[in-house]
Amino acid sequence: MKNQAAIGIDIGGTNTVLGLVDRYGKILVARSMPTKTSEDYTVYMDSLCNAIADLIAAGYTETEITGIGIGAPNGNYYNGTIEFAPNLKFNGIVPVVDYIKARFSYPIVVLTNDANAAAIGEMVYGGARNMKDFIMITLGTGVGSGIVVAGEMVYGHDGFAGEIGHTIVDPHGRHCGCGRQGCLETYTSAPGIKRTVFELLANRTEDSVLRNESFNCLSAKKIDEAARSGDKIAIEAFEITGEILGLKLADAVAHTSPEAIFLFGGLAQAGDLIFDPVKKHFENQVLNIYKNKVKILPSELPPGDAAILGASALVWKESGK
Amino acid sequence: MKNQAAIGIDIGGTNTVLGLVDRYGKILVARSMPTKTSEDYTVYMDSLCNAIADLIAAGYTETEITGIGIGAPNGNYYNGTIEFAPNLKFNGIVPVVDYIKARFSYPIVVLTNDANAAAIGEMVYGGARNMKDFIMITLGTGVGSGIVVAGEMVYGHDGFAGEIGHTIVDPHGRHCGCGRQGCLETYTSAPGIKRTVFELLANRTEDSVLRNESFNCLSAKKIDEAARSGDKIAIEAFEITGEILGLKLADAVAHTSPEAIFLFGGLAQAGDLIFDPVKKHFENQVLNIYKNKVKILPSELPPGDAAILGASALVWKESGK
Repeated sequence: MKNQAAIGIDIGGTNTVLGLVDRYGKILVARSMPTKTSEDYTVYMDSLCNAIADLIAAGYTETEITGIGIGAPNGNYYNGTIEFAPNLKFNGIVPVVDYIKARFSYPIVVLTNDANAAAIGEMVYGGARNMKDFIMITLGTGVGSGIVVAGEMVYGHDGFAGEIGHTIVDPHGRHCGCGRQGCLETYTSAPGIKRTVFELLANRTEDSVLRNESFNCLSAKKIDEAARSGDKIAIEAFEITGEILGLKLADAVAHTSPEAIFLFGGLAQAGDLIFDPVKKHFENQVLNIYKNKVKILPSELPPGDAAILGASALVWKESGK
Repeated sequence: MKNQAAIGIDIGGTNTVLGLVDRYGKILVARSMPTKTSEDYTVYMDSLCNAIADLIAAGYTETEITGIGIGAPNGNYYNGTIEFAPNLKFNGIVPVVDYIKARFSYPIVVLTNDANAAAIGEMVYGGARNMKDFIMITLGTGVGSGIVVAGEMVYGHDGFAGEIGHTIVDPHGRHCGCGRQGCLETYTSAPGIKRTVFELLANRTEDSVLRNESFNCLSAKKIDEAARSGDKIAIEAFEITGEILGLKLADAVAHTSPEAIFLFGGLAQAGDLIFDPVKKHFENQVLNIYKNKVKILPSELPPGDAAILGASALVWKESGK
């Protein structure tokens, strides 16, 4: 009997990565290609289909492919489409699943947004393997989320559920890429903590190595390093980030009451620097009936492979295995 | 063949109401009894069981009872218990379902919190009959909520999901009965709009009939009447209430992306006075992908009977009919 594998595809703003993944999360072979090939999505989709064919050809001949899973910004699970993704060159609605199905005959071709894919990756291969109710929060360039209730992904009426990054911290707060003000994403993403540092540099008088950085040159990694060297502004920026995230996670728990919340992405890799203030402020802020019940955990998916793993996990979830 | 009916029980802070309800939401016979009988819950539970027996005896002999559904503050679906309900005289954990099962042998005896029961009532008898994803918000003495995803009630890991009334509007805001500050409930419940009126009376100089009312004598009904007479303070209080509720409903939609949100309870009966500002501010505040998609609707359950109907609906939901 052949070993089963799934193809996982992550469509990012800059690059698309794809890989053949076995049932246990081992990536057998992987490929990468640029996403920004053309404004015409058919040009991109043709390149993607060629890359899939190449991946299959490079795969082990003893592997049977169960299906294709795709994670993408603004991915709609119900329609199999990418809809009006602000960070992709091709605007409008891209019928990704239909396009792939026209070229490959696998029974399962499934797409969702990247944060939902990460959540399913955590459920299939990671720390949520035995959990029925949890939330995945991705802290990267933006803040994404995937909500799982009773073992099932919450897609909602339109397929776009789980945008906790766009819940409002302050309706008169920071301008967000979505056109509104004060979204969680403007505070707790990698650019968000940078904005917090700049606010602190403006308001405080303490000396800081971060006073030598321009806005464009400053990165979350530099803030992390400064905090580890004892820089007070950097430490305070993590504290504020944790306070705001803890507060909005307390709100999220008041919706679906999960067993755990997983933090994933660049900012989550700051470890205790971010987890300690998040946990402290979450427990301070959460309604008493939820206190000391909800685990706030780092994702167990390996950072470099998480996108492919999450996308491939969609296939196993869909096949019910 | 006998007609099927369910017993619905609503345990309120002051009174407990119970009724025999047919599959179509017709209340065949109803009873009422005080809730505050004793601090010893067994005294209350014995009275309740006697009232159930009385109801069954008064019911039509041609009726076959499918089960008993109970809505209660801090009701836990998984455990069948009322847990630490602040407004009930008996504190601690009350094993309601086990107590009733020891006395009556119906296959279905099920309990949840009152807002979840209202949501299931809406799903079985009301405006959500054909909906898979919706949220029920109850605007009464407190603010409760029930969240339905893919046709199923969201109970969460511990059975306490759906406390949108305790999401935070302002962490430094109004003191809440839950011990925290700034919960939605402190702004958009019946006492919440009263607090808003008093804030306006303090901050503004406009004349208002409400300046003749003490805090204890003012009611949401009087604010409603004043607003309908053109009182600017009263109208502004509804506007502010709608703005805050609209904002937090936009947050709720970013979690589970429902088709509709139903408003139920005293404050919802203010009609356009509350629905107009809620809808306006909701649409202003909600993330673009959800705009013009989510209906904000009045509950279709008759106000006087909603509690019994919601509780009885738990039985039909549980029996899968």
